[in-house]
Amino acid sequence: MIDINVAERRRRARQLGALTDDQPLLLTSNDDVRWCSGFTGSNGWLLLDNSRTTLLTDGRYVDQAKHEVDETVEIVECRTASAMIDHITTRVGSRTLLVQGEHMTVALARRIEAALTHPLVLTADTMADLRRTKSSTEIATIRRAASIADLALADLIPRLIEGTTERELRDSIENFMRQHGADGPSYDTIIAAGPTHSAHPHHRPTDRSLSSGDSVVIDVGALLDGYHSDMTRTFFVGDVSGEIEHWYGVLLEAQLAALNEVGPGVPVKHIDSVCRSVLKREGLEELFAHGLGHGVGLQIHENPFLNGSSDAVLMPGDVVTIEPGLYRGGVGGMRIEDLVLVTAESHDILTNSPKDPKCPR
Amino acid sequence: MIDINVAERRRRARQLGALTDDQPLLLTSNDDVRWCSGFTGSNGWLLLDNSRTTLLTDGRYVDQAKHEVDETVEIVECRTASAMIDHITTRVGSRTLLVQGEHMTVALARRIEAALTHPLVLTADTMADLRRTKSSTEIATIRRAASIADLALADLIPRLIEGTTERELRDSIENFMRQHGADGPSYDTIIAAGPTHSAHPHHRPTDRSLSSGDSVVIDVGALLDGYHSDMTRTFFVGDVSGEIEHWYGVLLEAQLAALNEVGPGVPVKHIDSVCRSVLKREGLEELFAHGLGHGVGLQIHENPFLNGSSDAVLMPGDVVTIEPGLYRGGVGGMRIEDLVLVTAESHDILTNSPKDPKCPR
Repeated sequence: MIDINVAERRRRARQLGALTDDQPLLLTSNDDVRWCSGFTGSNGWLLLDNSRTTLLTDGRYVDQAKHEVDETVEIVECRTASAMIDHITTRVGSRTLLVQGEHMTVALARRIEAALTHPLVLTADTMADLRRTKSSTEIATIRRAASIADLALADLIPRLIEGTTERELRDSIENFMRQHGADGPSYDTIIAAGPTHSAHPHHRPTDRSLSSGDSVVIDVGALLDGYHSDMTRTFFVGDVSGEIEHWYGVLLEAQLAALNEVGPGVPVKHIDSVCRSVLKREGLEELFAHGLGHGVGLQIHENPFLNGSSDAVLMPGDVVTIEPGLYRGGVGGMRIEDLVLVTAESHDILTNSPKDPKCPR
Repeated sequence: MIDINVAERRRRARQLGALTDDQPLLLTSNDDVRWCSGFTGSNGWLLLDNSRTTLLTDGRYVDQAKHEVDETVEIVECRTASAMIDHITTRVGSRTLLVQGEHMTVALARRIEAALTHPLVLTADTMADLRRTKSSTEIATIRRAASIADLALADLIPRLIEGTTERELRDSIENFMRQHGADGPSYDTIIAAGPTHSAHPHHRPTDRSLSSGDSVVIDVGALLDGYHSDMTRTFFVGDVSGEIEHWYGVLLEAQLAALNEVGPGVPVKHIDSVCRSVLKREGLEELFAHGLGHGVGLQIHENPFLNGSSDAVLMPGDVVTIEPGLYRGGVGGMRIEDLVLVTAESHDILTNSPKDPKCPR
């Protein structure tokens, strides 16, 4: 499937890379190669000259590449990584090569540099910044992915009862997503129940059963055509402690306050500060030990990152999470996360699952 | 769960890294950090000095780290990547830092280097070489993983009939593996049916239905406690062409001949050559456009890699795949892959699924 915007994307990459005939750009990140060419294989480099676009891949992917890229992309088959390096260095010769410093390993960089006249120039976030702004096709895909996760969570809620294990819940929700069109989960689904597990933000599901008094954190997304969704809800099994109930009320207030600030031109540190000030008012700020959110697209974590030390400003086409959480080992944990599109005037929330933490009895 | 061998692994890492008080080693690969410390979070660096072991991670993982690492590992919480870099450069000071060149990005390397007196020294494959030799615990885990995939494939075979789609087969086999103890599939399961899809070695399942005359490639593994398994079988739906039948006979002969050579002290290029000479005899060598195999462990592709240009020699404790394939777009494709443990005297095949390509009717 060739995206009609792929050639335009390459044009922008060339512009951003300040690409001249003297400075070709080598893309080595799979996601960026895909974004600029349509190629979805696991081994491909894209060399962008002003006048040529070349995809280097190995024999496993040549046929697939011919189906995926448009006719202006030249495909070169290389049997080994050394052959890929040789091709690149021959093509670059005495020019200066721009590379993706956040992706290329230092070992590879040193091998390529040894065969070139000039040191490599790193184009740190060029591509990540370009990929921030989602096209309408990309937004439609992410919206569908988010909606599959919504449906899957709705299907799961009746099973949030004593005796069900974290793993059973994980299997059930992931299976539902596949049966409803997802290529799989976006990441390892988190089902974290009870005072110890729910206090680990990145807990992995175990055979622990839900029991009355648990808070249960469910962090789930669907993968669709390479794009991710991301959502977290927290549920109570039976009656939870007054402390947990209080935390939830504060956390929900903080999450909604942050969501409400999302819009074009808004500095992410402002949103972070709005969220944290609600938690601070209740003396709970120390229990929120991670960032407020992140961009979502071909990568589950991508630009922009939302936290108090970032200078990023939101812009239309950003798709970001807003996901404050509270965690204290032995007491419990909770997180509420939505996926939000920044629009020209405000925002559009892509995750629509309800936020009532009460479970069926 | 603390592996009793973790301290011993760190001792070996220090030895291999030629570690002295003047040359601390920084591990930044998640798998290597896990292998040397037991820590399974997604953000952790391990600094090995001769006298100290320090795990750097962020607030999400501090509590988890305390449960996973042993008491000789000091845990340092860092809120940001910059804080991690600051801690490392302060600790290293005017000494020389060894880093994992095949893993660290060139952007990170340049940031760290800018704060140190000496250039970084790359320890390319140190850890990958250490991880090659599997302990009995690791072998037991991989064997269990392989056996879950065997069971799942046996369960799937009755469904290899006309009308079933690639995706349905994928969902079914992955679901079976989860229900039988796997944490998930080892990688994106490949179900590739018919003359076009089966000719793509890394095809992703679609809504295409099986139909009579198809060859169907099923490449599946189970993930268990961080360890992978890997296996491929090829099946025929109904009657296939004489050409496909012929190919299969040759491929099976080549795969068995290669398997038969696996043992300690054997150069991998010898095994590759034995396999390719069978294909060559029948004029099919050109249809085998990828490597013969690879090591499997915490990574699905790891040392040693088996191909004609490698100087690697097998040794006891290696777990490798033997996976020749034949592919021609429009005609079809096939692959047969086993996972094999190299023992002190010979080898032990960990995948036990039968190789009869005929499906039930």
